[in-house]
Amino acid sequence: MEKAIRIDQIFKNETAHLEKEVTIQGWVRTRRDSKAGISFIEVNDGSCLRNLQVIADRSRPELESVVERLATGCAVQVQGVVQASPGKGQSIEVHAERIDLFGWADPAVYPLQKKRHSFEFLRTIGHLRPRTNTLGAVARIRNRLSFAVHQFFQKEGFFYVHTPIITSSDCEGAGEVFRVTTLDPAAPPAPGNPDGNVYSQDFFEKPAYLTVSGQLQAEIYALALGKVYTFGPTFRAENSNTSRHLAEFWMIEPEMAFYDLQDNLELAQSFIKYVISAVLDDCQEDLNLFARFVEPTLMETLETLVRETFQVITYTEAVEILKKSGESFDYPVEWGTDLQSEHERYLTEKKFRKPVAIIDFPRAIKPFYMRVNDDEKTVAAVDVLVPRVGEIIGGSQREERLDVLLKQMEIKAVPAEEYQWYVDLRRFGSAPHSGFGLGLERLVQFTTGLGNIREVIPFPRTPGHADF
Amino acid sequence: MEKAIRIDQIFKNETAHLEKEVTIQGWVRTRRDSKAGISFIEVNDGSCLRNLQVIADRSRPELESVVERLATGCAVQVQGVVQASPGKGQSIEVHAERIDLFGWADPAVYPLQKKRHSFEFLRTIGHLRPRTNTLGAVARIRNRLSFAVHQFFQKEGFFYVHTPIITSSDCEGAGEVFRVTTLDPAAPPAPGNPDGNVYSQDFFEKPAYLTVSGQLQAEIYALALGKVYTFGPTFRAENSNTSRHLAEFWMIEPEMAFYDLQDNLELAQSFIKYVISAVLDDCQEDLNLFARFVEPTLMETLETLVRETFQVITYTEAVEILKKSGESFDYPVEWGTDLQSEHERYLTEKKFRKPVAIIDFPRAIKPFYMRVNDDEKTVAAVDVLVPRVGEIIGGSQREERLDVLLKQMEIKAVPAEEYQWYVDLRRFGSAPHSGFGLGLERLVQFTTGLGNIREVIPFPRTPGHADF
Repeated sequence: MEKAIRIDQIFKNETAHLEKEVTIQGWVRTRRDSKAGISFIEVNDGSCLRNLQVIADRSRPELESVVERLATGCAVQVQGVVQASPGKGQSIEVHAERIDLFGWADPAVYPLQKKRHSFEFLRTIGHLRPRTNTLGAVARIRNRLSFAVHQFFQKEGFFYVHTPIITSSDCEGAGEVFRVTTLDPAAPPAPGNPDGNVYSQDFFEKPAYLTVSGQLQAEIYALALGKVYTFGPTFRAENSNTSRHLAEFWMIEPEMAFYDLQDNLELAQSFIKYVISAVLDDCQEDLNLFARFVEPTLMETLETLVRETFQVITYTEAVEILKKSGESFDYPVEWGTDLQSEHERYLTEKKFRKPVAIIDFPRAIKPFYMRVNDDEKTVAAVDVLVPRVGEIIGGSQREERLDVLLKQMEIKAVPAEEYQWYVDLRRFGSAPHSGFGLGLERLVQFTTGLGNIREVIPFPRTPGHADF
Repeated sequence: MEKAIRIDQIFKNETAHLEKEVTIQGWVRTRRDSKAGISFIEVNDGSCLRNLQVIADRSRPELESVVERLATGCAVQVQGVVQASPGKGQSIEVHAERIDLFGWADPAVYPLQKKRHSFEFLRTIGHLRPRTNTLGAVARIRNRLSFAVHQFFQKEGFFYVHTPIITSSDCEGAGEVFRVTTLDPAAPPAPGNPDGNVYSQDFFEKPAYLTVSGQLQAEIYALALGKVYTFGPTFRAENSNTSRHLAEFWMIEPEMAFYDLQDNLELAQSFIKYVISAVLDDCQEDLNLFARFVEPTLMETLETLVRETFQVITYTEAVEILKKSGESFDYPVEWGTDLQSEHERYLTEKKFRKPVAIIDFPRAIKPFYMRVNDDEKTVAAVDVLVPRVGEIIGGSQREERLDVLLKQMEIKAVPAEEYQWYVDLRRFGSAPHSGFGLGLERLVQFTTGLGNIREVIPFPRTPGHADF
């Protein structure tokens, strides 16, 4: 097809394009006709938030015949010359020489008309919602964050590892899991053996699940390649219909040999600063949309995160601060219980007004793989809290001592026979190592200010919803 | 912990490190003791294929006490001074001042001793195999290819989109699918409604599956943002126990609005040249391993791909060439049938001796979404063939005309009610668009010469195998 230029490229260097002929391809956002016979057509091609204004002289019959059909949503190609714009709201515009209409959108039935639509409504038309300003901006920011994840770890010498999606280990009981099967629960086979096990007839010849985390498998690679990270989908079959939960979401999980908790925390800090800086540098226009219409404190929160050193406190200190805070929390604070979102938000939003890293959590409330501290009561865990979202990163130094790990597995009732391979990593060339996990959707929520997690993933999966 | 330098960084600039003190952290590959009381310890930290030789003077008791325990697989930290090496096989070495042993590996039971192990054996110890030279090299090359995928599309203005893993559409019958459920086929619920449907009680309240491709959903985003790509896991529940099939594998699927077949083909060509060039530039040492021990023609094949313009022929021409070839194929060649691997390899390995793009396949053997050509007998499809692997890329221009798409769906018995959203993309602002898919594992096989696909993914899933 005709080689077109993307609209963001024109805006990036307007003067270089002045008086030049360009071809653009995109979708009509609005069309307005002046009485003087001029049409103003706003075209968006998805490369950026801004539309490029196209000026069409309707006295030219070959333009008039196309322009009269143009409505919101139509796919067009415009050839014309870039000119300085005398109008308000833009400094350049394209004077059309030729307009081709690829695909029409009937205004009588096309659901995305100019008015504002609620997020709830847009969710019912998930195949069209990325064409809106807000969801388009989410997609661009999500893209920038995702690429920044790779850029950061690659420059730091990490290797990207694809940990398995289908797994036969149900991963330390981190929540309800989805089953993966070729058997049909509506017509299950007869048990294939005397003990009544239908799974011997399943694809993997035993029960299999969707992963809840790639961490344990990433440890395999960290203890071979040194520094690795995963970035892939993870799953929870929790029946939670809230604005904070998805059944399918994307996780980033770095894992580093020869890193202790302090190293881990420093990495987490420089990592999140890096990815937020990338968005601040490259997505200013999209961020402004969210700062204006969604979350007024957005820019300040993001800039604070990049600028400030994270506050580091122990869990024990956090509990003391919360108890003395004078706040009335819904959930009581007591040493040994998990912090709730309200507690996390108090610490980061009110007490310290910047990101907070809490370390050394009670051993009893954390998983078996976290390294036991010398006090034997706490483990070398770290949670990073940020305003609005609360916990955005959860990590730990891993237990590298064989005897302590086996003891932990016994206490936590982790079946040793299923995790023999994990134990082996402590039998053969064990080393101190650490890692953390960060949910991409939480990160996009933090970056955009959007309150409902269903808006920050292209195709949200929740109880009763797996459309498309 | 002590800040260490990665071994690849020392090798990248040996002279800068000469006479400098360094700390390295890694795993012992071998230890050899000289009669003169010197130990030679090869240390690998996974950052590169090469080991760094550590020289330890055993007359120093504090070294002797550690060194005498060092065996293959031990995790160590070494502090010492980089010196020019008088020995063969390396130009520098580290003279140890201090050695710390983190984790021992008992030579009596550690499975990875110095001898060569078969790939079959290594598959049985999937948690240790990345510690071998070959699997480590695979991991580094896979990492470089994966990042190059992102680098390429980002520099070309594409947006990375996460298409869903769990889907309620069983995707154009591209093969057997896995079911995703919270029901237990071993103990299925009683039907929840009179028509006997147990799925009303399932998590998504209807049958759900693992995706076989993100293409159709990527089209949604291409028709909003212009140019997008997916890079994620896809699944096939085919009961094929071959060296070419996996139940879980990673796919890259770009999708571009305003691209016709020719544009698509040009993108595919520049894409694959870019990612192979990245490996040729940055993974020379790892590539040499495969060229020496796995596939002697490797470097020539890769360099040819980067250098040569792909040969473009129509399917009809391909059939004629194959018929006239004089080769005796296992499968007969007849217009209207799918090309087999042996046909593809003849064309790319013998006839043209470079990558071949075949376009315009018979309409009857291709899916409903491919654009029907004017002859009405063929569709605007493209397959890219490369030596050894055969088809590495499959793509097409998509049918953007509403009436033709509906006709195709009718012919191919695609249920229109399930794909209403897909049809909508042709009702509202449709535009010519195209895309292709490339399996990452095929690409890693092509780049390494490895014959069995189980070696190029960290945790292969095949019938009966979902370990870890």
